[in-house]
Amino acid sequence: MTRARASRIFRPLDSEPVRAATIRAGEVLVEEHPDPEPGAGQVRVRVRGAGVNGADMLQRRGRYPAPPGSPQEIPGLELAGEVEALGDGAARFGEGDRVMGIVGGGGQAELAVVHERQLMPVPDAVALPDAGGLPEVFTTAHDALFTQAGLRPGERLLVHGAAGGVGTAAVQLGRALGAHVTATVRNPAARDAVAALGADEVVEPEGFEEHGPFHVILELVGAPNLAADLKALETEGRIVVIGVGAGAKAELNLALLMARRGRIMASTLRARPLEQKAATARALEREVLPRFARGELRVPIAATFALDDVAAAYDHFAAGGKLGKIVLEP
Amino acid sequence: MTRARASRIFRPLDSEPVRAATIRAGEVLVEEHPDPEPGAGQVRVRVRGAGVNGADMLQRRGRYPAPPGSPQEIPGLELAGEVEALGDGAARFGEGDRVMGIVGGGGQAELAVVHERQLMPVPDAVALPDAGGLPEVFTTAHDALFTQAGLRPGERLLVHGAAGGVGTAAVQLGRALGAHVTATVRNPAARDAVAALGADEVVEPEGFEEHGPFHVILELVGAPNLAADLKALETEGRIVVIGVGAGAKAELNLALLMARRGRIMASTLRARPLEQKAATARALEREVLPRFARGELRVPIAATFALDDVAAAYDHFAAGGKLGKIVLEP
Repeated sequence: MTRARASRIFRPLDSEPVRAATIRAGEVLVEEHPDPEPGAGQVRVRVRGAGVNGADMLQRRGRYPAPPGSPQEIPGLELAGEVEALGDGAARFGEGDRVMGIVGGGGQAELAVVHERQLMPVPDAVALPDAGGLPEVFTTAHDALFTQAGLRPGERLLVHGAAGGVGTAAVQLGRALGAHVTATVRNPAARDAVAALGADEVVEPEGFEEHGPFHVILELVGAPNLAADLKALETEGRIVVIGVGAGAKAELNLALLMARRGRIMASTLRARPLEQKAATARALEREVLPRFARGELRVPIAATFALDDVAAAYDHFAAGGKLGKIVLEP
Repeated sequence: MTRARASRIFRPLDSEPVRAATIRAGEVLVEEHPDPEPGAGQVRVRVRGAGVNGADMLQRRGRYPAPPGSPQEIPGLELAGEVEALGDGAARFGEGDRVMGIVGGGGQAELAVVHERQLMPVPDAVALPDAGGLPEVFTTAHDALFTQAGLRPGERLLVHGAAGGVGTAAVQLGRALGAHVTATVRNPAARDAVAALGADEVVEPEGFEEHGPFHVILELVGAPNLAADLKALETEGRIVVIGVGAGAKAELNLALLMARRGRIMASTLRARPLEQKAATARALEREVLPRFARGELRVPIAATFALDDVAAAYDHFAAGGKLGKIVLEP
């Protein structure tokens, strides 16, 4: 079998059907698609775990379409699995290597092709299905806290919506860096679990500003928080907005933002070009994966579902109230 | 006289009255104050030029008080003149050196004491009264465009309110760096002068967004522009808010800011601690003053007034419609 696979790596494959989550008219189901061929610099991955994300919910409803060049009908922004074939020039990984990464789409399938610069090695300490839920939330949280907001040791960090996927990653990353982490959690049942991830204090969303001021505020909820975020902002503080599920239209007092010498930064990973996505992967390899290897960080998994149960997985995600990631196992 | 002055440098001075602009009950007038003594690391400057700024207008109305440690009654955020006495340990300048700098207050007086780290040498190409109008606007524009927004050559810069003091500095700095500069100017009479400063295009404030997208927008007007600023923002663009004269309460679409991967940063120089003000002075010395020395930049002067005419100078400033700085000559 090793020999047979090895021979497949260096020549085009016959097209074989591949089962993949597929979005049709507002529903998600499983259909067969052509076997994806790795192009130049790409790797074909046998997917063992694929996280479910908020963007999949939007995509199911016909919003947030996949960027050009990504599969349009197959959802899935992240995956982990084993390298099965290499395109021309791909050299970072070998057959059978455990890899994970963010993709523009198409992750929730038995096979997926990914540019090798977007892939990272899976640390030994992380199981392969779980690794399918690692890239999106840890890359998003790392990019927001460090690349965007420049969080520094000793600073006070506020994470809104800390029980969600990105929230649990941000709490762990903030704590690991040596920041003081305050977490807001709406669901009382999730508070102990968020504290166990390393939050110094877990507070209710109402009145969070009394626990400030904060140097960095990670806004995963949206516009309703912005006015209080600004009041609770430390001088030269940064508000990073990467989720607006509760609303996008905010009122902003520019005079107060000037007095704070503050910054509001907002971002999304999905639309970024390859070179930027690759840069986030390199930053994660360098700054975060060693902490997984040492057992300092973990991927909280709320539930795993078989690929055939993708609709149930989406419904479970949409219902909210869970702590950690939902991962599909193709 | 040189000997007499030299001897004064190294020992405390008898208190002599000094004439200074003074704010009393909403009016600005000239009063005598005690001769200021330079403390450790400070320099006493014989002021030859002192710019008038928007903050002075606010201070006259009892708002925007001077920060702690600065003269509370004597306005004036910037000055230029000759070094007259050195406090303990002050070593950057010698007696008679031409210096200029930003101060927390007290600039509009015959004499002022300033920490030597806040002072810069006046380039030979700049006359001394004019230099009194250089530090505030060029430091503000440089800090906003480069330190805050990270403007790069080839980027498209929009300067709102380009006929004002900071605006004229920003247009010149953007052009000198090699950015493409679009300037909005409300007063038609000022458009040619702004174009002559190096703006690639000078447009009306209404409909400016049709000239975008812009990588950096310098917002000197305020909240009414913000929604259109965001629409006109290039991907990964930065909006820097350093003036809100037209209003401070803005509506902000966070989803659009995310889609732009944009940043809104707001700042003010006056409240910053000494080390930051000193850092802005070092940056100006390094990056901007050589261009004055080569004649590539200039301080547009709208009018000069004798210190005794400070009330008229303030009224002239408040009336608006001028291009360039108003400078007092004590």
